[in-house]
Amino acid sequence: MKQIILAAALALTFPSSALADAPKGLAWDIVEWLTTEIGPRHGGTEAEARARVWAVAKLKALGFANVRIEEFDMPVWVRGEERGSIIAPFPHRFALTALGNSGATPATGLKAEVIAFTTYDAFKDAPDAMVKGKIVYVSHAMHRTMDGSSYGIYGVLRRQGPSLAAKKGAAAILIRSIGTSEHRTPHTGNTGWEAGVSPIPAAALSNPDAKHLETVMARAKGKPVTIDLTLTPKFTGSQKSGNVIAEVPGTDAAAGLVVIGGHLDSWDLGTGAIDDASGVAITTEAAKRLLDTGKKPRRTVRLVWWGAEEVGIFGGNAYFEAHKAEPHALAAESDFGADRVWRLDVRLPDAARPLAERLGKALSPLGITLSKELAGGGADVGQLVGSGVPAIDLQQDGTRYFDLHHTAEDTLDKIDPALLAQNVEAWSIMVNMVANAPEDLMAGQRK
Amino acid sequence: MKQIILAAALALTFPSSALADAPKGLAWDIVEWLTTEIGPRHGGTEAEARARVWAVAKLKALGFANVRIEEFDMPVWVRGEERGSIIAPFPHRFALTALGNSGATPATGLKAEVIAFTTYDAFKDAPDAMVKGKIVYVSHAMHRTMDGSSYGIYGVLRRQGPSLAAKKGAAAILIRSIGTSEHRTPHTGNTGWEAGVSPIPAAALSNPDAKHLETVMARAKGKPVTIDLTLTPKFTGSQKSGNVIAEVPGTDAAAGLVVIGGHLDSWDLGTGAIDDASGVAITTEAAKRLLDTGKKPRRTVRLVWWGAEEVGIFGGNAYFEAHKAEPHALAAESDFGADRVWRLDVRLPDAARPLAERLGKALSPLGITLSKELAGGGADVGQLVGSGVPAIDLQQDGTRYFDLHHTAEDTLDKIDPALLAQNVEAWSIMVNMVANAPEDLMAGQRK
Repeated sequence: MKQIILAAALALTFPSSALADAPKGLAWDIVEWLTTEIGPRHGGTEAEARARVWAVAKLKALGFANVRIEEFDMPVWVRGEERGSIIAPFPHRFALTALGNSGATPATGLKAEVIAFTTYDAFKDAPDAMVKGKIVYVSHAMHRTMDGSSYGIYGVLRRQGPSLAAKKGAAAILIRSIGTSEHRTPHTGNTGWEAGVSPIPAAALSNPDAKHLETVMARAKGKPVTIDLTLTPKFTGSQKSGNVIAEVPGTDAAAGLVVIGGHLDSWDLGTGAIDDASGVAITTEAAKRLLDTGKKPRRTVRLVWWGAEEVGIFGGNAYFEAHKAEPHALAAESDFGADRVWRLDVRLPDAARPLAERLGKALSPLGITLSKELAGGGADVGQLVGSGVPAIDLQQDGTRYFDLHHTAEDTLDKIDPALLAQNVEAWSIMVNMVANAPEDLMAGQRK
Repeated sequence: MKQIILAAALALTFPSSALADAPKGLAWDIVEWLTTEIGPRHGGTEAEARARVWAVAKLKALGFANVRIEEFDMPVWVRGEERGSIIAPFPHRFALTALGNSGATPATGLKAEVIAFTTYDAFKDAPDAMVKGKIVYVSHAMHRTMDGSSYGIYGVLRRQGPSLAAKKGAAAILIRSIGTSEHRTPHTGNTGWEAGVSPIPAAALSNPDAKHLETVMARAKGKPVTIDLTLTPKFTGSQKSGNVIAEVPGTDAAAGLVVIGGHLDSWDLGTGAIDDASGVAITTEAAKRLLDTGKKPRRTVRLVWWGAEEVGIFGGNAYFEAHKAEPHALAAESDFGADRVWRLDVRLPDAARPLAERLGKALSPLGITLSKELAGGGADVGQLVGSGVPAIDLQQDGTRYFDLHHTAEDTLDKIDPALLAQNVEAWSIMVNMVANAPEDLMAGQRK
């Protein structure tokens, strides 16, 4: 009978996650909430809006000041059906996914021969006649890097390849996923179209499917390889998105704002756990700990849950336009998963060098070392930092980040609560020290 | 210009696999061929038939004797559409897949509340009234084991759970995948229906989706959780399948046959690389090496590529019915992936103990040790072994086998050519020694 009771009282029998015994706190709660009760939060959609409403209630309940949504308008692209197969000489059904902003095929699909390139450079150098009317496939050799640097290098294929294929007259483009997953879960991500270029269908094959196509090309021994591709994404016009903002008020407005946060939106394939519910959650718990000291910091800490980052950094750009006239002492975003922080990068005026040294010492017990790299700040604060605002990066270990990035695998079960807690600890130390630093952090901005 | 030429001469630029520098031979060629040029080979389908035709040509070309197909009839179940979502309280689209022999939902789907159980035993003990009309979900705690023993234990949920759910009046059953993948690639596999039980829809959730459902159940705090499930598989009636047989003739018919092989068919989600193109390939290269010694062995070695194993061991059963009257000295199947052989299990008459000792010594340099476990032989030779035929198992490391087993991940890229080669080496040694052993291997069969 005991087992029957267990089954009936189910809420008691399932812990709220599979890792119930690991340390958990506010950050975990936020990640679990966003991934479980909201799920995917594609920029400009109803789900993202629902998350904003909840966020405001949650941040008010936590005691933050000036909690509000700052809305903006943005064009919205939504995924449709997506499937593709090799139809000759050796049939195979691909695991693939459309890139953000991809054009559509006819609803009945598009059949064409493949022309394949081993590198983006080889594709760039190919004459248009070789590509015209074909489905272009481009491979690459992206591998894991702890600092994520391979993403910038190989990602050019996703960011620029489709536009180039369109200009060369290709019927469509398939790329090997920009990611390191060895699984049949393709990596999506945005592409862009140069002015005047008409979008063509553009999709990423999972890495195993990319390897499969390459083996088929080799075994076809020069026979044409043909593909049938169906992608039916569309633009649904201009929609509302928004940034959610909350503050820990400071005592010295002239010392400038400390802006921290992550992005609330996610890609649509997974539930946006590592990208970027974790960043939102880490920075929120860090700000909450500052609030809970009960002592106002010198600088106001402004927490932002940016909207619509994945699909074009719309939230970051809207924030910049709305707030660029305010004095900003620091910008820092958490947007690289939930694995451990291993490195501290800073971009501070010379006068604030002592702050960097103090941060390095304070973070050292967590396994974090001060580097010579210049901090970038993160996508949503890119314009702020570009305009001269100091930045700090708490660099996370990215070794497995691109196994999950922009795939259906970006789900709660991939987050290790102990590593999430290390992030919170590091951010708490950093935010507290920066908010209270006696140095003039804006020295570099005053010409 | 060099890069353009590379692109044009593509067959030269893509090696036939991503691991081009590792050792490769006949076994690799067979696996690559089956997975690339045929792909999934679901029992009783046209693809499996196409593989048989190629196999005969290949085995003849390799010089084997008595190459033939032995056909049999079997009922065929084929997958249809499959999708499922939590519709309340927190929407989520599952990665799921129908179990083999699953019943169908209406084409428009089936909506019902979920009743969840943490173990198969809890579900078994639940009163019918608790389950009636609901979608049953059953979890479990299967973990990796090197010897694969967890599959037998936890697999009862897949094999018997659906039939039990149908008897209790459930509308459908979802199980946590019987497998260890941490990815959103659910594990299929056959289920069976007790006589007189009408099939109900039965599917496996990927492990991340199973965890997600469990988190939703916990966060729902007693509110009903409802699911919309659509599965449209069907039976296509009786179809032809077959076993492909080839022989290395021996000199002493009275010494009995040595039957080795793997199964040609695969599940339909991946390309059947580890299950079981690799088993077919390993045993074929081992037999080919024996053939290439140029010296007839004492015993005839009969190589069988069994058909339709996954969907009910139809090939193994057909072989038994056709050949049970012939003297069999040994049966051995390779059907546990392509990772390294680590253990030698035997089931030999006492008189053949010296053979076991010699095998242990000969395989020791490959890291293989003679165990005290009794060999089972493999699914396709189960009836032979049950009838008293000796068996040998070259046990493979199954640590990662159930990450891939019966999923879309069962693809060529998961096979390590060096480990495949170790299997071939071990099988070559074993087959040669057994085929030529002076011992009487059939002593135990003559009462």
